[in-house]
Amino acid sequence: MTPHPNPGRDPHRGRDPHQGPHGRPPDEERLARAALSHIVEPGDPHAGRALRRYGANGFLRLLRENAVPAQPGLWAPGTPGPYEDVHDDSHGERTPPALTEARLAGWRRRARTATPEQHLDHIARLGGRFVIPGDTEWPRQLDDLGDARPIGLWVRGPADLRAWALRSVALVGARACTPYGAHTAAALAAGLSEHGWVVVSGAAFGIDGAAHRGALGTGGATIAVLACGVDVPYPRGHAGLIRRITEQGLVLGELPPGGHPTRSRFVLRNRVIAALTRGTVVVEAEHRSGSLVTARAAARLGRHTMGVPGPVTSGLSAGVHELLRGEATLVSDAADIVELVGDIGQLAPPRRGPVLPRDLLAPDTARVLEALPARHPTPLADIATRAGTDPDHTLAKLYELHSLGFVERHDDHWRLTNTPTQPSNARHGGT
Amino acid sequence: MTPHPNPGRDPHRGRDPHQGPHGRPPDEERLARAALSHIVEPGDPHAGRALRRYGANGFLRLLRENAVPAQPGLWAPGTPGPYEDVHDDSHGERTPPALTEARLAGWRRRARTATPEQHLDHIARLGGRFVIPGDTEWPRQLDDLGDARPIGLWVRGPADLRAWALRSVALVGARACTPYGAHTAAALAAGLSEHGWVVVSGAAFGIDGAAHRGALGTGGATIAVLACGVDVPYPRGHAGLIRRITEQGLVLGELPPGGHPTRSRFVLRNRVIAALTRGTVVVEAEHRSGSLVTARAAARLGRHTMGVPGPVTSGLSAGVHELLRGEATLVSDAADIVELVGDIGQLAPPRRGPVLPRDLLAPDTARVLEALPARHPTPLADIATRAGTDPDHTLAKLYELHSLGFVERHDDHWRLTNTPTQPSNARHGGT
Repeated sequence: MTPHPNPGRDPHRGRDPHQGPHGRPPDEERLARAALSHIVEPGDPHAGRALRRYGANGFLRLLRENAVPAQPGLWAPGTPGPYEDVHDDSHGERTPPALTEARLAGWRRRARTATPEQHLDHIARLGGRFVIPGDTEWPRQLDDLGDARPIGLWVRGPADLRAWALRSVALVGARACTPYGAHTAAALAAGLSEHGWVVVSGAAFGIDGAAHRGALGTGGATIAVLACGVDVPYPRGHAGLIRRITEQGLVLGELPPGGHPTRSRFVLRNRVIAALTRGTVVVEAEHRSGSLVTARAAARLGRHTMGVPGPVTSGLSAGVHELLRGEATLVSDAADIVELVGDIGQLAPPRRGPVLPRDLLAPDTARVLEALPARHPTPLADIATRAGTDPDHTLAKLYELHSLGFVERHDDHWRLTNTPTQPSNARHGGT
Repeated sequence: MTPHPNPGRDPHRGRDPHQGPHGRPPDEERLARAALSHIVEPGDPHAGRALRRYGANGFLRLLRENAVPAQPGLWAPGTPGPYEDVHDDSHGERTPPALTEARLAGWRRRARTATPEQHLDHIARLGGRFVIPGDTEWPRQLDDLGDARPIGLWVRGPADLRAWALRSVALVGARACTPYGAHTAAALAAGLSEHGWVVVSGAAFGIDGAAHRGALGTGGATIAVLACGVDVPYPRGHAGLIRRITEQGLVLGELPPGGHPTRSRFVLRNRVIAALTRGTVVVEAEHRSGSLVTARAAARLGRHTMGVPGPVTSGLSAGVHELLRGEATLVSDAADIVELVGDIGQLAPPRRGPVLPRDLLAPDTARVLEALPARHPTPLADIATRAGTDPDHTLAKLYELHSLGFVERHDDHWRLTNTPTQPSNARHGGT
């Protein structure tokens, strides 16, 4: 019934290289969060605070049992609640008003229709999973969202979300983009893929689609963050693209299966894109565009905010230019982006080698690593053949290995990281 | 024989509103500087120091009479000279080595062919003048160039250089520009003209030409800074354009009549464009373009440095984008530029009125001011008819009056500045 939160993990191993300090959360926590992901709207800071105060189970019980919370003042309309002094620093916004009976009533109505077991069954049947804080696959950078942190993420696709998101960049922009914008988005995505970076976008028409396709086309890794359930192909015209990303990349969202997008969900989805990635690049955007919301969220979260300029005669570049006069850095190509978001290791050759001993890798990840020859850069298809896994799965593992420092991508080829000594031997010689 | 340095000045008046503290320099100073403008290359800081040390007459005498300077160490090769400790702060560069016999010999060779009287006669016959520091027409912002300050400026055209340069912006860019670049330069120049700003450029093909034409086309004011004599139409294909600027605007340069452009003179001309204006806008420029030299000179001089972005697919925008990642501010239209370079008065309505009493204006300037009706914005042609002067001369005076705060331009029309009381009366009532 419970989905498999970490498909690459071997349950028979005593140690998991990705394992967080808290271990895997209990199943009841996952079930409660699945219910809450249906009950509360994405990014609702009131819900985030209640969750922090009562825990997922406690919060859900409160809603289901019509229980009165311990602090009498908390729910009274207009009365300051116990969290009134808590500031949502990550957003620099004013503290929202205390919980009110009206807000509570809305959640209680929705709690009656929550079917978390069915949703978890459904995602498992789709080959997906519901990833929650504490899971090894949980991308911890989302914690920067504070009380607006997602309750959980519904995920489909063969890759490990946490490993991929570590080396990811968001490419966003206008739906009704120009041919220049589409061309540039695709070229940037292809270039980022060739540098071994994961391209994150929102699967919309225009720039989003061009970015995903640019990554897929060059055998790269891409993540689509949806404002609806991961089984809902929205927009309809991108059903094929989203299916392809489900096979080769990752598709994720905050809403349980069947959830439909709304205007506010689109806006709130953007904060997940901004928080998940090392930086956000806006390719084309008009004044007051949703892409600017994503970019400004990225800036507030301390992520790199970048913009691709265009002709000043184009209204579709006006929003980007506005951003470039403020918080954003001008980028012209993938190398500019990598220079900004790349870590020290990216800039200072030779690399110091992997951060994890080889022995601690999950077996199917280790199999892909072993399929790489000692010296020569090798195309994906050859590695997949040697490893005996399909290319999409192989690619997912290669990007994980890239995040962990074992391999590098050079154009269409993959090779072992150039290190003076065998890292696993060296490390194990000392222990 | 000596040219008229300030055509708008009335020699019978006791007070001149433009008069500097030193009064008008003596004719022998002008003659010596005219000779030196032939002898030393534009922007040579060694010459600038000698000029500062000995004065124009003393420096010229030293070169003509083969005299040995008072400080024995000054001219010895490799020996530190008396100015060794003087730093050229305005450029942030290291102190150049002391004067050497070789450098001195080069100047002495050229001193034999200097014919300053003929050059001054020539410029006077062309209706021009040789403007030197201390003249009321000298643009004092050029003093920011330190020892690289021009020795003097050979000027043609009906306007007062100092008044025009006070409200001027440089538009520069690639010679081999794209249609996008040419269109944008012309549109910016037209927009700046309509805001009452003077457009300064270098009369080259491409962006420069489009900028001058954009200003001229909308009845605006424009200054061409040449890297050759002001009687040399370079480039040949712009002979007609330069002639038109001589009639309606200002053409100036550091070289005496007949002087020819060289590669280094083009580069050094750029510092004059940068220093003369409140800011420099680069429209299109490749990497390592001369326009970037102008922009960086502007930044070093504390002027605003601006860039117009373009498609990242265009190599002709790559240099601008490089600049925008560094010292420059992105601008999309004339309003963006005016917002940056405009003074407080430009931004804070209502304006406080003119800085000079009306009575102190030169008679032909006052005549143009009197030709403006009390309230209604009036087209240039009507003002010229009322004032009884030709349109080019009227325009020159209107831009002077604009610098002094008496008038404003609104599109094609001019009107008196909107002040609550008559400024001249109010001021004179108090004295």
